[in-house]
Amino acid sequence: MAEIIDKVKEKVKEVGHAVKSEAGPQESAESMNKNQSEANEENDGPSKSALKKQAKEAEKAKKKAEQAAKKEAEAKARAKAEAEVPDCSTGRYGKLSLHQSQSRPNRKRTDISTLSAKNDGEQVLIRARVQTLRAQGSRMVFLNLRQRQDTLQALLQVTDNIISKQMVKWAAGLQDEAIVLVGGTVTKSPEPIKSATVDDIEIHIHELWLIAGLQDRLPFSLDDASRSETAPEVEGQFNRVLLDTRLNNRIIDLRTQTNQAIFKLQHAIGDLFREYLNGQGFIEIHSPKLQGAATESGASVFKVSYFKGNAFLAQSPQLAKQMAIAADFERVYEIGPVFRAEDSNTHRHLTEFIGLDLEMTIEEHYHEVRELLDGLFKSLFRGLREKHAKEIATVGRQFEAEEFKWREGEEGTLSLTFKEAVDLLVEDGVSRDVLDDINTENEKRLGRLVKTKYDTDYFIIDKFPLALRPFYTMPDPVDPTLSNSYDFFMRGEEILSGAQRIHDPIFLAEQMRIKGVDPDTMKGYLDGFRMGCPPHGGGGIGLERVLMLFLKLNNIRRASLFPRDPKRLEP
Amino acid sequence: MAEIIDKVKEKVKEVGHAVKSEAGPQESAESMNKNQSEANEENDGPSKSALKKQAKEAEKAKKKAEQAAKKEAEAKARAKAEAEVPDCSTGRYGKLSLHQSQSRPNRKRTDISTLSAKNDGEQVLIRARVQTLRAQGSRMVFLNLRQRQDTLQALLQVTDNIISKQMVKWAAGLQDEAIVLVGGTVTKSPEPIKSATVDDIEIHIHELWLIAGLQDRLPFSLDDASRSETAPEVEGQFNRVLLDTRLNNRIIDLRTQTNQAIFKLQHAIGDLFREYLNGQGFIEIHSPKLQGAATESGASVFKVSYFKGNAFLAQSPQLAKQMAIAADFERVYEIGPVFRAEDSNTHRHLTEFIGLDLEMTIEEHYHEVRELLDGLFKSLFRGLREKHAKEIATVGRQFEAEEFKWREGEEGTLSLTFKEAVDLLVEDGVSRDVLDDINTENEKRLGRLVKTKYDTDYFIIDKFPLALRPFYTMPDPVDPTLSNSYDFFMRGEEILSGAQRIHDPIFLAEQMRIKGVDPDTMKGYLDGFRMGCPPHGGGGIGLERVLMLFLKLNNIRRASLFPRDPKRLEP
Repeated sequence: MAEIIDKVKEKVKEVGHAVKSEAGPQESAESMNKNQSEANEENDGPSKSALKKQAKEAEKAKKKAEQAAKKEAEAKARAKAEAEVPDCSTGRYGKLSLHQSQSRPNRKRTDISTLSAKNDGEQVLIRARVQTLRAQGSRMVFLNLRQRQDTLQALLQVTDNIISKQMVKWAAGLQDEAIVLVGGTVTKSPEPIKSATVDDIEIHIHELWLIAGLQDRLPFSLDDASRSETAPEVEGQFNRVLLDTRLNNRIIDLRTQTNQAIFKLQHAIGDLFREYLNGQGFIEIHSPKLQGAATESGASVFKVSYFKGNAFLAQSPQLAKQMAIAADFERVYEIGPVFRAEDSNTHRHLTEFIGLDLEMTIEEHYHEVRELLDGLFKSLFRGLREKHAKEIATVGRQFEAEEFKWREGEEGTLSLTFKEAVDLLVEDGVSRDVLDDINTENEKRLGRLVKTKYDTDYFIIDKFPLALRPFYTMPDPVDPTLSNSYDFFMRGEEILSGAQRIHDPIFLAEQMRIKGVDPDTMKGYLDGFRMGCPPHGGGGIGLERVLMLFLKLNNIRRASLFPRDPKRLEP
Repeated sequence: MAEIIDKVKEKVKEVGHAVKSEAGPQESAESMNKNQSEANEENDGPSKSALKKQAKEAEKAKKKAEQAAKKEAEAKARAKAEAEVPDCSTGRYGKLSLHQSQSRPNRKRTDISTLSAKNDGEQVLIRARVQTLRAQGSRMVFLNLRQRQDTLQALLQVTDNIISKQMVKWAAGLQDEAIVLVGGTVTKSPEPIKSATVDDIEIHIHELWLIAGLQDRLPFSLDDASRSETAPEVEGQFNRVLLDTRLNNRIIDLRTQTNQAIFKLQHAIGDLFREYLNGQGFIEIHSPKLQGAATESGASVFKVSYFKGNAFLAQSPQLAKQMAIAADFERVYEIGPVFRAEDSNTHRHLTEFIGLDLEMTIEEHYHEVRELLDGLFKSLFRGLREKHAKEIATVGRQFEAEEFKWREGEEGTLSLTFKEAVDLLVEDGVSRDVLDDINTENEKRLGRLVKTKYDTDYFIIDKFPLALRPFYTMPDPVDPTLSNSYDFFMRGEEILSGAQRIHDPIFLAEQMRIKGVDPDTMKGYLDGFRMGCPPHGGGGIGLERVLMLFLKLNNIRRASLFPRDPKRLEP
């Protein structure tokens, strides 16, 4: 404990600021003395002319030495004078000691995003990152301050009796991404400041403190990380930061205004999802991710050591949602992690992602679910466009995308049957032979066809062949080769898969056998229906996919805070 | 596929209703014939008196047989007559064929909870469970219908040309927990119906369909499962359903009105948590549960097979939250599963629970976080009491509890320092020697002391000894044996633990070494702070604990949909 005490005391001792002594002048004086002694060594047995030459050179050397000595004396005098000149800015700047909640003076901090020319003349105190800084001579430093999505210009300038040259020099040495506390005056700018999002003011600094510095060089600059993905790359002009480099240094990457906006939008999607479903009588559930058995066939599951046995990570809340329906919850949703042990290394697969899942009872027809889901998506799109135009615009500066389009009003969402979707592709030249299923490539092609023909980025395919769906999917009542199932698409990629489920345990066991699943291996699943389960249906949405496709981020890793794929478990 | 077609056709063929043929009369006729032949076998070599006796007995037997034959004939005639009498209720009742979304007549369903005497005379269609039913003679059946938290009485009564005896008989055979579709007329009840939550009306049924029956006997009745936990147990009067039996049959158990209310309150806590934090500028994050390394010392972690290597399940989002702060998110929260590989089999430990976690930057003092958390809890308590009185009352009928109390207004929440809490316990007679830490037993004792002295079920302990907290906890600036950390308590149990964290990587590594943690083993954690991290603090709340303690459920398993502990991975 004594050790802690000492260490803490050491930390506390660090004074309000630390002006570094300048090593420069002393170093140059030492090198001068060395030159002088070298000259003296060369002085024996020469000719007259040589002597004259030597005398001249000696004179030269002497003069040089005298000049050097004079320079040195001047530098020393200057340094002494500087040291003696009291720093008028003492108490206005420096490195703060480690923040341990020493005191609470209750000085209000201001958010950059709330400031504009209307605040002209106000005194503000701002904690922010130094995104970049630029010194102009020795008397002026411009700082570009950043908070989340916003930046603001601040100016520190030598001012008699207030801002010293020492203070400006210290500020000029601040690292990019240092965290500072800035006190200053809001000052209206005569012309828009292009480098800042708050462009009609700047802050005239009168105090500047370093809260936290960096221990390492930045792996890339935030400016480089924020450039438009579609900007042409010019040799030597800037470095494009590769996705892998970003993900390896995700903490820095996430600081870009683009990423701040992306994850604000991720939050918004979750909120809009809940808001809509809460309004429709749903309740949120939390189902266990640790399962005693692998619950669904198909997708592979991760195995967990569980005390003396094993458990498995849920590959979806499918069973739990359905059990909640059998337990009379009527309408449930869940937002939670979903785990897939699939070795898929594509732009749209993760081993862990966030599922937005819902399940509800059906009264008459599974289209009740389909319509609710459609209502949900449209409310999502509207919510994003209406409440988050700023974030969408911020992301758009780095990831250029046509605005996302969907159909509103009486026209309604485009819904094709699987057969109609296939016909569209065949019309476009795809061979019907390969269209038993629609693969990723043809999905995208279909997306383009639909966009051209119907001017929408969002549509539904209904009535998938039963053979393409999991065993728990309810067959069509008339054509048993079809099923009561649907997929939803955004920009030609599937973002939701859903269906009416089989609620009768005897029929369910039959369907399992037909699909080659032994009902005995899924007793837990089947048992869920033996005590009476109402007809129901639902769907599962991948949060990161919706975010990626709405913003056209082109890689799902960009829509995940700390993405996990078969090759990435860090950071 | 042909097989599916046949099976589906079979299902579809099942007609609208199936009147069972009554086996009773035939069985009794057969047993009469048997008696007759037994009598005939006993007829050789007797005495006269014996003969007389035999003759008499034969006469008796003959008469008996004749009577039986007559009875049989009558029964047959009655059955024939009954079969010939057209069932005036055909098309009003029966088992529905498997729901495959065959049609969509758009008949509106009504929620039981919306009905009252104001709807007198209205026609309604209701899908509900049959909680219980009671036949009165052969002409009347009372059904207790249930939807989530609400029940309603419905009456089916023989009525000329509308409701037949056959229909009533069929209804009387419905199983408890069958799902039915009931059409009827809302009828004001002359006196309150004690057995139903909607007590001023009943439904006079004119159609009744079985949507889904049961494949098995119920493991316990819903009535038994819903009884007050504090009601005295009287031999033979009813069965108390044990927690383990409930959890083994969780789907049935969850159907009780109590559980419907508990999980509605669980949802409410999540919503109130988010609502408050959204209003305070927080953003919701989703951090990965799969980790490349065990990130915190102390609690054990579950190991996962991850392709050719291993991963670990996050035992808290601690690291991720802090990394989000280092990435400038400023204020973040997460609602998600937390995994603990601790072999703790207590009333308050789960191996998987839902963490309500938050982290925020600090400007001047960690009490900024403490105050925000306090505001959060009070808004939670208020929200539950104001918006969910019905659910709290429903749960209270089974789990009796004093109303949860907290201090509002200027008085503010009670906050004791750790030292003050220890003093209170010492005053009460606990030896100071055992109070280096406050164990669970003394925690509860403290809760009782505080309740008596301050009349509150909710309070804070601040300034824990540094030795009791994890390595990342910020020491107190003056007394380095203390720390900037706090716990929150409800009814004498800890529900939140939080602190200011160390944001400086060099100081953090020092603290690790002091606590015996090798910084090299936690490089990922340390690296998170190397590029500048603002001062910050936060806390983690166990959702199930808050729910359990607010409602006094006495076991955390009751607050988890499908609980997981060292011995339970199903259902």
